[in-house]
Amino acid sequence: MGISLEELQLAARNHGMPLEALRYPVTPVGLHYLLIHYDIPAVDAATWRLEVRGAQTLSLTLEDVRARPAVELAATMECAGNGRALLDPRPASQPWLAEAVGTARWGGTPLRRVLEDAGIPEGTVDVVFRGLDRGAETGELPERYARALGLGEALREEVLLAYEMNGAALPPQHGFPLRLVVPGWYGMTNVKWLAEIELVDKPFGGFQNERAYWFRRSSEDAGTPLDRMRPRALMVPPGVPEFFSRRRLLEPGDCLLEGRAWSGFAPVAGVDVSADGGATWAAAELRGDEGRWAWRGWTFAWSATPGEHVLCCRARDEAGNEQPFEAEWNVGGYANNGVQRVGVSVA
Amino acid sequence: MGISLEELQLAARNHGMPLEALRYPVTPVGLHYLLIHYDIPAVDAATWRLEVRGAQTLSLTLEDVRARPAVELAATMECAGNGRALLDPRPASQPWLAEAVGTARWGGTPLRRVLEDAGIPEGTVDVVFRGLDRGAETGELPERYARALGLGEALREEVLLAYEMNGAALPPQHGFPLRLVVPGWYGMTNVKWLAEIELVDKPFGGFQNERAYWFRRSSEDAGTPLDRMRPRALMVPPGVPEFFSRRRLLEPGDCLLEGRAWSGFAPVAGVDVSADGGATWAAAELRGDEGRWAWRGWTFAWSATPGEHVLCCRARDEAGNEQPFEAEWNVGGYANNGVQRVGVSVA
Repeated sequence: MGISLEELQLAARNHGMPLEALRYPVTPVGLHYLLIHYDIPAVDAATWRLEVRGAQTLSLTLEDVRARPAVELAATMECAGNGRALLDPRPASQPWLAEAVGTARWGGTPLRRVLEDAGIPEGTVDVVFRGLDRGAETGELPERYARALGLGEALREEVLLAYEMNGAALPPQHGFPLRLVVPGWYGMTNVKWLAEIELVDKPFGGFQNERAYWFRRSSEDAGTPLDRMRPRALMVPPGVPEFFSRRRLLEPGDCLLEGRAWSGFAPVAGVDVSADGGATWAAAELRGDEGRWAWRGWTFAWSATPGEHVLCCRARDEAGNEQPFEAEWNVGGYANNGVQRVGVSVA
Repeated sequence: MGISLEELQLAARNHGMPLEALRYPVTPVGLHYLLIHYDIPAVDAATWRLEVRGAQTLSLTLEDVRARPAVELAATMECAGNGRALLDPRPASQPWLAEAVGTARWGGTPLRRVLEDAGIPEGTVDVVFRGLDRGAETGELPERYARALGLGEALREEVLLAYEMNGAALPPQHGFPLRLVVPGWYGMTNVKWLAEIELVDKPFGGFQNERAYWFRRSSEDAGTPLDRMRPRALMVPPGVPEFFSRRRLLEPGDCLLEGRAWSGFAPVAGVDVSADGGATWAAAELRGDEGRWAWRGWTFAWSATPGEHVLCCRARDEAGNEQPFEAEWNVGGYANNGVQRVGVSVA
């Protein structure tokens, strides 16, 4: 496949969720996927402030933020580049296979009320979120990581300023002391090490909004910005692995396949499973979830017969979005939600 | 560099410590390196037992283990394959660059007293540790992960059965509910998801002892088994990164370089730094450490002048072991402690 040194450098520091961790409804810290564009910044919580520039400017300490109304919700987060390394030709960036996902219980305070307290000027179009992480894109000058949300999205009640993950303070790598959490959207939206929120009256022109994270079929395609997570189902690979090939080895007999499925557009409506590489499909049984913004568990009773099998799963949501068998190639290598294929040797 | 799909599959699930995390004397959970040979097993702590087969067989619950004398120590752990992907030709396995390291505060109970309680039969040679993680090596049948220590090493007072990491229960990916910690040795020794300890009267012939983890200069070389970590120093890459190349960008002026250094053989005696790719060296200042088995911090005052620079650091220990500029190639790609080279553009 010919992964380059640059791609390997990214793969060695960022990491996916090992797929056996799909067994946990909430991903334990350290197993949740991570994509850190630049470096993890060193942040002193005592001197850190959140500046909110609306009709007036608020400067909040961490204690101020924690003293505000507290909510907790479970949200599944997936990198927009998940599946990139399976595209051919492979766009050069973080080379994810299928594992750039995780679900956390995020604890924090609703963004909406913070914006209201700062005052939302007439004519506000975008809300810009800037982190303390700083670096350069190829050929550009160093800047702080920044992403904007349209005002309507920013005012959704489930959008949080989160200071806790799974009941404890955010770890450094997930944005300590505060990050944005926008349930349903791909990971790049959820700005970590958040330091500044600015309400602006024209569309934000920063690199991560205007140039990265667009779905473009060719370099001539104007494209569309990435936002919500497309539907995807993943399974826990059954049996045991061979160390180097990761090929799965399984004994014949009943095998309960399990996995999780999600969509940023609407609740999961169904998951289908194929044990013959996608030739025939049957419905999986859906399990409960941890709320609207978390993935949904599923199981499928498979009778494993001796031989070589390719297991697949695919999800659809209540808005009618279906996971494709093969996803469309695109310049940035985003949103590749083609179905997972798990080779299994039964003997 | 041409990394294969198999290597990428390993790199996407295992991960190194982003080098900016060298700033922490104790690595936060989720940033410590991870190498999981097979899958993370699902363990029910209520039914889990540790079987200890000595003169008699003990069967200990987690409560039994936690009721024993408790100790905590900070230990640096490095994968024996760290640096593998920088060797040429590159041995095919987990493709580490330089980041497969971390330091944790391990809490547990001394192994020695558990062995003494089980009774150490006359003629015991090896102590075998078996985990609950199961998988196959290429062309082999599936087995549980197992490694042995010679009896003398196993009786060292700092060898622990650890149930805590950084003050909390072990996370699943670090061996919940119990793992072996052998301070000073490479990571493969520190068996996770520990379920069985067996005292045997001949050298253990398992795959991970007899076939993997040997330093062999060629396929004809009988070789020597890997054990203690060779000396190594690493630095926090200064300045800020370019996202894709990871090249460092820095403004001219005073720059305090910092990093950590360790050796499994003896305390660190010194660290030298070069700002010209290894042509000239000067001594770094050593800082305190978290105890004998943890890495030691160091700093170096560098005056960054405009231009391109290659920064290097190297460690030596009190037993006279020195980190080589280039390490020796070997069949398995182990113990590559050649010096780190960090390219920096100052402008």
